[in-house]
Amino acid sequence: MENQRISRVIDLMRKMHLSQTLISAPASVFYLTGKWIYPGERMLAVLLKDSGEITLFANRLFALKGTIDIPLVEYDDTEDCVALLADALSAGPVGIDKDWPSRFTIRLLEKRSDIRPIIGSPCVDGARLCKDKIEVALMRESSLKNDAAIQKTIAQLRIGMTEKEVAGIYNRESAALGSSRPSFSPLICFGANCAEPHHGTDSTILKDGDSVILDVGLTWKSYCSDMTRTVFIGKATDEQKFVYETVRKANAAGRAAVRPGVLLRDIDRAARKVIEDAGYGEYFIHRTGHGIGLEVHEYPDVSATSDAVATPGMIFSVEPGIYLPGRFGVRVEDLVVVTEDGCETLNKAPHEFVEIT
Amino acid sequence: MENQRISRVIDLMRKMHLSQTLISAPASVFYLTGKWIYPGERMLAVLLKDSGEITLFANRLFALKGTIDIPLVEYDDTEDCVALLADALSAGPVGIDKDWPSRFTIRLLEKRSDIRPIIGSPCVDGARLCKDKIEVALMRESSLKNDAAIQKTIAQLRIGMTEKEVAGIYNRESAALGSSRPSFSPLICFGANCAEPHHGTDSTILKDGDSVILDVGLTWKSYCSDMTRTVFIGKATDEQKFVYETVRKANAAGRAAVRPGVLLRDIDRAARKVIEDAGYGEYFIHRTGHGIGLEVHEYPDVSATSDAVATPGMIFSVEPGIYLPGRFGVRVEDLVVVTEDGCETLNKAPHEFVEIT
Repeated sequence: MENQRISRVIDLMRKMHLSQTLISAPASVFYLTGKWIYPGERMLAVLLKDSGEITLFANRLFALKGTIDIPLVEYDDTEDCVALLADALSAGPVGIDKDWPSRFTIRLLEKRSDIRPIIGSPCVDGARLCKDKIEVALMRESSLKNDAAIQKTIAQLRIGMTEKEVAGIYNRESAALGSSRPSFSPLICFGANCAEPHHGTDSTILKDGDSVILDVGLTWKSYCSDMTRTVFIGKATDEQKFVYETVRKANAAGRAAVRPGVLLRDIDRAARKVIEDAGYGEYFIHRTGHGIGLEVHEYPDVSATSDAVATPGMIFSVEPGIYLPGRFGVRVEDLVVVTEDGCETLNKAPHEFVEIT
Repeated sequence: MENQRISRVIDLMRKMHLSQTLISAPASVFYLTGKWIYPGERMLAVLLKDSGEITLFANRLFALKGTIDIPLVEYDDTEDCVALLADALSAGPVGIDKDWPSRFTIRLLEKRSDIRPIIGSPCVDGARLCKDKIEVALMRESSLKNDAAIQKTIAQLRIGMTEKEVAGIYNRESAALGSSRPSFSPLICFGANCAEPHHGTDSTILKDGDSVILDVGLTWKSYCSDMTRTVFIGKATDEQKFVYETVRKANAAGRAAVRPGVLLRDIDRAARKVIEDAGYGEYFIHRTGHGIGLEVHEYPDVSATSDAVATPGMIFSVEPGIYLPGRFGVRVEDLVVVTEDGCETLNKAPHEFVEIT
């Protein structure tokens, strides 16, 4: 599995005319080695050459010896770790991870005036963009667990609860399903708070007539899920029902537009058109979706300006919404994986209009 | 206030033969501008020249215009922000923040082959090391609030509670005192968990005979407090009492050793000697303390290898402990500020041996 991933990174390195690159983002190191390592202030880097040679440089404190398949160079706190790395580089361009702290890049340049740093992240980010079969299977499991956790949470909604209590219920339900941690803090909104897409879950109390947005995700074997459902407390108004049905159709239209070769901006367009046609265009105030995998937000965006092309294995969210300031809001979000002839929706929880009485 | 801080940074730049430096760490930007700005993926930098010229480069999204005293260069997402910065630099060495993402440093080097990046962080970190009068006053207030919050928490300890519940009580009490957030997640340990200095607060239940370590801190007007108290549930054993008194004396000896000119390693020695003399040297398994201010862990360490010299305005923790695996542990921690002739202990909560029956 990791060998195929390494080959894909090397293909992309060649396209960038890069014969060597340093990879340090924990999710990318996991992708290539199967190990999550959080280096804190210490140096961590995978050096990958286009010959296929791969070496992990890590502090001895992380006790990786014997736990990892690829060649390992260990150092301790008394050693000059950057010098070890400098010795292993060839002259010329070197790919550097976009987020690597500058102290490492600067020390490397002080030791090797014959190298030229290039931002190398697109090689691994590009490989991570299309998930392989193992990844798709884990993303499917992650979303099925998320479906179960959100449905168990919705079943426990009661008037008088706070948003934070509902977030706590989701966290307990997802932990009970075996998830080690949520993929992000649950975003729970009641009533007028639903109209602020970035509302922070707080102590607002649930009351009759409220819309409830639950935007939640968990991690399963390192892979992130992310979904949103909206339900109503008590008898909904005709407008609430119309807005809900509009968003539900926008979500369906966005997903129906997904197939290999389609520009992601056309998927955004398909979802947005449904909302515009219903007269609510100005109230859909964010992009339609985002890539997801080992991290909850990955390249690419599903937005009006996205030039990315849907390709089998890509996984992203489709999450249109309508936000009516001071009143209520609705969002319906699913994850989809691009297949050979369309897409598979990873979430199976129903989209039907729900009134909780 | 900020002007004096800028002068101190420039003095340190001159010592490093640096005529220009880029400052990007949020705490350092706050130190110089009075504004917390979290740039996320976007570029944020203060450019400081040894002439005193200072400019903040920030994305227009942060809406800083009119809120900040220093010259501002704003950019939006369609502009090449690194080019704006590159135009403002002189040829030669440029200080770069140690944690600035490499993508910015690399793009800067692509645009300006006549600059030489140097790790510039020691200039601001050095200035932040000795707190000015305003900072000392805020650190004093922060610790007094922490004293109040820990005492209110200890008063609510009951057999049957979990560590997480006690952490929740501390969080509520510190919020009620006006703190916007804890300076770190409360570390609450019961019984044998007290013997692991890095135990993660969990669902362990408090029982008779337990030691209880509460290691807690809050933020007050951006400044961090950090303290530890240990109490016992029920009638303590003679050994528990002896270990407690040993740690209490080690804490007092550490603080008594603080005065200008003393090496921080000699403060570590003074505290450690009390524990060694009592026969528990091998059970004091961490450094004696760490610097603190806008961040909960700042340079310098108070450890056996620290070459730093106590200087008026420095604030650090003195936190010796004894950890008896599988049984119990004790730690007593206060913050001290170095004064002209000794030190002031910022925490006023008592050190007396406490049994809760």
